[in-house]
Order: sequence, then C-alpha cells, then structure tokens
Amino acid sequence: MKALVYHGAGKKSLDERPVPKLVSATDAIVKVTHTTICGTDLHILKGDVPTCEPGRILGHEGVGVIEEVGAAVSTFKPGDHVLISCITSCGKCEYCRRGMYSHCTTGGWILGNRIDGTQAEYVRIPHAETSLYPIPADADEEALVMLSDILPTGFECGVLNGRVQPGSTVAIVGSGPIGLAALLTAQFYTPAQIIMIDRDANRLEIARTFGATACVDISQEDAVEQIMKLTEGVGVDCAIEAVGVPASFEMCEAIIAPGGTIANVGVHGVKADLHLEHLWDRNISITTRLVDTVSTPMLLKTVRAGKLEANKLITHRFSLNDMLKAYETFGQAADTHALKVVINAV
Amino acid sequence: MKALVYHGAGKKSLDERPVPKLVSATDAIVKVTHTTICGTDLHILKGDVPTCEPGRILGHEGVGVIEEVGAAVSTFKPGDHVLISCITSCGKCEYCRRGMYSHCTTGGWILGNRIDGTQAEYVRIPHAETSLYPIPADADEEALVMLSDILPTGFECGVLNGRVQPGSTVAIVGSGPIGLAALLTAQFYTPAQIIMIDRDANRLEIARTFGATACVDISQEDAVEQIMKLTEGVGVDCAIEAVGVPASFEMCEAIIAPGGTIANVGVHGVKADLHLEHLWDRNISITTRLVDTVSTPMLLKTVRAGKLEANKLITHRFSLNDMLKAYETFGQAADTHALKVVINAV
Repeated sequence: MKALVYHGAGKKSLDERPVPKLVSATDAIVKVTHTTICGTDLHILKGDVPTCEPGRILGHEGVGVIEEVGAAVSTFKPGDHVLISCITSCGKCEYCRRGMYSHCTTGGWILGNRIDGTQAEYVRIPHAETSLYPIPADADEEALVMLSDILPTGFECGVLNGRVQPGSTVAIVGSGPIGLAALLTAQFYTPAQIIMIDRDANRLEIARTFGATACVDISQEDAVEQIMKLTEGVGVDCAIEAVGVPASFEMCEAIIAPGGTIANVGVHGVKADLHLEHLWDRNISITTRLVDTVSTPMLLKTVRAGKLEANKLITHRFSLNDMLKAYETFGQAADTHALKVVINAV
Repeated sequence: MKALVYHGAGKKSLDERPVPKLVSATDAIVKVTHTTICGTDLHILKGDVPTCEPGRILGHEGVGVIEEVGAAVSTFKPGDHVLISCITSCGKCEYCRRGMYSHCTTGGWILGNRIDGTQAEYVRIPHAETSLYPIPADADEEALVMLSDILPTGFECGVLNGRVQPGSTVAIVGSGPIGLAALLTAQFYTPAQIIMIDRDANRLEIARTFGATACVDISQEDAVEQIMKLTEGVGVDCAIEAVGVPASFEMCEAIIAPGGTIANVGVHGVKADLHLEHLWDRNISITTRLVDTVSTPMLLKTVRAGKLEANKLITHRFSLNDMLKAYETFGQAADTHALKVVINAV
C-alpha cells in the first residue's frame, strides 16, 4: 500500500509499505478513505517530536471502513464506516476511567507517533472499540475528518477548559485551524464577544465569516490595547491560546479579566513567563490539556444536526498520490491560504 | 486611642490617634477586642505594597463589638459581637454578585491598606452588613480571629481552588500559618495523603501534629524526588503553593500529576517560569485567588461544631501596648517559632 513515511528531520516520502495486520485481539484494520495533515505532523518533520522515530507512517486523523477486526472486537464488523480518533484509549486504565483518554497508559496520542498512522491506505487501530466511532455510511466523510482531532481539540482544550459561557467575552489568540475550531465550537455557548487575534489578514477575514465579533491584526495594532478597549478596560473572561509560543501565552496573561480563564491549546516547545506578580490576586485559572476526545460523540451529533459546519475548515483536496503536494500546500499556508487539506485515500 | 501606624518603609510606631467616626450610612464602628498580625503587614513594612501610604493604621484581621452603626445598617446594633473580614464587600457590584468579594469595586482588601485597619482600639468598617459576621457573645474570640483571613485564605485559595477530593494526594509547599490553614481545612475532604514541604523542622513537626501524612524538609532532601517517591512516580493531584516565591511555584509544576491542579496562595513579587514545554499536554490547571471570604459563614460553623481547631494556630499572645514586641516575635518566626500572635486590644 502507499503510505507517507517520516525518515528523520526534514525527510519524508510516499513509500510502498505492507498492509498492516492485526497484532492484538482488540485491534481493527481500517481501510482509510479520507485523512488530513496536522500542524503536529509538521512539528514531527522538523524533528521536534522525539517519540516519533524514522520509518513511521504519519497521520492521526481519518475516516474509513473496517476491513478486519480482532477476536475481542464485537462492536464493529467489516464494512462499518468509522471515524478514527487521534487519541487511542483502552477504556480500562485509571486515566480512561476518569475520561482522560489522552493519558491512557497504553494509548494516548500514539497514532502516527509511536505506531504507524493514517496517511496510508490502511491503518491498524489498537483498542478499536474505544478508539473508533461509528458513522453513517452516507455521512459527509470529508467533514468528519475534522472530528478526528481539530474540532475536539479546539472544543475541549479551548472552549470547555476555558469555561465559555453565555454572555462571556472570549479572545482566541491564533486564527489557524485550531483557533477557528475553537471559534466554531465556542458559539455553542453563545458568548457575547469572540475576538480573534492573528497577524494573517486572510485568516482573520475567515474568522469574521465564521462568527468572530471582532478581529485584531497584531501586525497592524497593539493587541492588548485593542482588546482592553473592546472590553471596556476589564479584559476577557476567557483567553484561548492557539499558537504555542511564549508571546501569545503572555498576551493572554495581559488580557485576562479578574475571575477569567486562560485555556492553553497550543503545543509549546519552550517555557513562558508567568507574571504571578500581577496575577496572584486576580482569581484566574490557567488550563492545559491534550485533547481527550471525550466530546467526539457529542460533536458528531452537532455535525449531523447541522449545528457545526465542520466542512468549512477544508480549503484543499488531494489524492493520496499527491500527498507530497498536499504537505507543501499545508506547510505554506500563509501563501496558499490553506486551512485543512483533505486527502482522499481511495 | 492606641493604634499601630505605618510610617513608610521600615517604620512603624504605636501612636495615639482619634477614635474613627462614621463616614457613610453603611459604616459601623467596631471596638476591637482581638486582632493579629499577617505576613502581608510585614510586606507593607518592607515598602512592598504601594497602595498602603504612610500614616495608615495597619491590620485587616480582628474580632470586636459593634460600637455604633450608620443609618443604613439594620442587621447589626451596638453591643453585637462580630468577626471582621479582611475583605470588605458592598454586596452589590458585579464582582460581589458573582461571589468575588475580593474584587468588589468599592471594597476588596482595603482594611489596613487603603483605609485604617484593625490594629487599634477601634476601627471603621465600610459596607458593614456585608463585611462583618455575627458571632455569639460567648465565642472563643481568639480562635475566631483566625477566620478573618488565614483560614478562608488557606481554604478558598488552596483547598477549594485546588479541588481537594476524598482520596486525592495533596502537597502543600510552605508550612507557615497559611500552609497550615490549608492543611487543617484540606482535611474536610479526607484526602489520602497530605505532604507538607518546608525548610523549617519546627514547622514541619507542627504540620505532623496537624494531620500531615508526610513531611519533606527541603533543607535536607530533594523535595521533588521525595514527593515522586511518595506518590509512586505519579505526582500529586493538588499542589498548594503557600510561600510566594518562584522556586516554590516551580516545584509545584514539577510534582503535579496529569489532571492535577496547582493552587497558588502565595503573594508573589516577581514572575515565575511556566514550563509549558512540559505542561501543555498534562491536563493541569493553575489557579490564583485573593481570598473572597465567601466561606467565612461555613468556617464559623465548622469551628463551632469542633471540626476546625482554629486556636491551634495561635502561639503567642500580647496586649495592644506590647504591639511592637508582637511584631518582633512574629517577624522572627524562625527563632520564636511563632505562627499566629493574638493581640488582646481591650
């Protein structure tokens, strides 16, 4: 089968690889119909993710059809259409029992990291019963690929952790796919204001069409000053960090209102300054989270009900044969205006 | 009347001052029977609190008897015994309505800071109906002074914000009065372990008699290593920072388990390093808070019911005439082994 393989920092190629086989009785083999590329894949390609070793098939997002199941799998059978979660969970360990699937002792984020992933014609999914979700055969599969990772990430790490509530003021720092996923799902709770912050005019324009009430272009204006003006000097109830660099996290510290929550979504490679000298008495919370995908079944319902237009995040489409071009397009998003690229693997 | 007056960095004296008068219809004048000294008073005396100007009577803790009330005060009358809260709240502004009395737009921590405080024979209390709490005439008033600030602070900022739960593992960094207040009130929730960390052997010994299940002396051992050993390599569910320096906050970052909460209680003068590169995917929360004293009525019940031995925190007693000696004893706690010193003002 064809598969996108990581060959060490800076190197990848579309290789011919054997179709995966069942290893454990709880495994399923899924024929991938659609997959996509994540910012995290670009991190891996930079050599930033030491757990991902050369030779690994990348990808942790996708939709497909069950090809084969292990002896212990009873809830899925060949031919079933499934959504692949970026988080693999056993459903049995202490973390899984607490709904913290991201920290599953034999799962977590392993797909396209510690084990081969979804940017291929077939993928082996461990703990299949608790890591795959059934979808109707007639579903908009392209749209559902957005539910493997970015929509639950924006929602759980940003909106839920940030405690977005009716009437609250929200700022989302970073208008990339994850920030936009937070923007879309924040609207479930009818906040009074959602302010998007970025330095890319195109992405801010998209944010406006996605429901942002105000946009702040940090390449043009002082974001903190602007946000304080928009909130009558109080700051925001919820600041969602969706970039992953110290400057954007520290911006959240500067704009958070007393009693507010800074919800970190970004993947950080270095420490940030925590200004406790200003924040110790502000009654704020800061949260971090690797997406648990506990909200995936709920999000599937909102897509089906037309309450969440997941397909809006898709800007480009490629076949698996054009995988390298898909990476190029996604990697040069400032020029290509790519948000999510969908790869049709069939 | 006699009053302890701040005269600028490093300077204080016991002065003769006029008895305060009612200023607003919602004020009460309270004859102070007992007061105490807080670590924050020492901060003021170092010149660290710019809102507190020279000439200010210090003190934000106390118990007393109503001397006189303004025309708008109907819930208290002269002769009533009251607990004075360190937080003044109007009960009407948006923050008060949300239970965030600490951020009351015309109150908050003003006593002994922006207005004259309790280290005197009499004190004027604004917003009296919502800033004083009735206590029985026969109450142990010395013990109740501990409810003006340190017990609600340890409880709200440490235990409630830290989400201490039955069976959870708790570490409290700092075994001073506030850390010990958190230790006493954490036991309301029956955690499995409470580990106290300090560099003062005497304070750790006290912590042990107050219910700590383990003590770590950082002058003798590697605290992080020791705590990881005590928690089988997982870390703690709740880390309470009760010191107020970067090193102790960063220790909390190093010992927090996935899904855990770091509850900051300490007053910080400088920033700390937030190691997002390790914490971004750990599903943790960090909280800060200036005590709101929303729990004061509840804490009064626990003291009355014998569930909270507030008087255990008192090590020394002085008369108001000996106020300077009281400061000396409290300020040299490492030598005097002082926790809280109670000043009898009558």
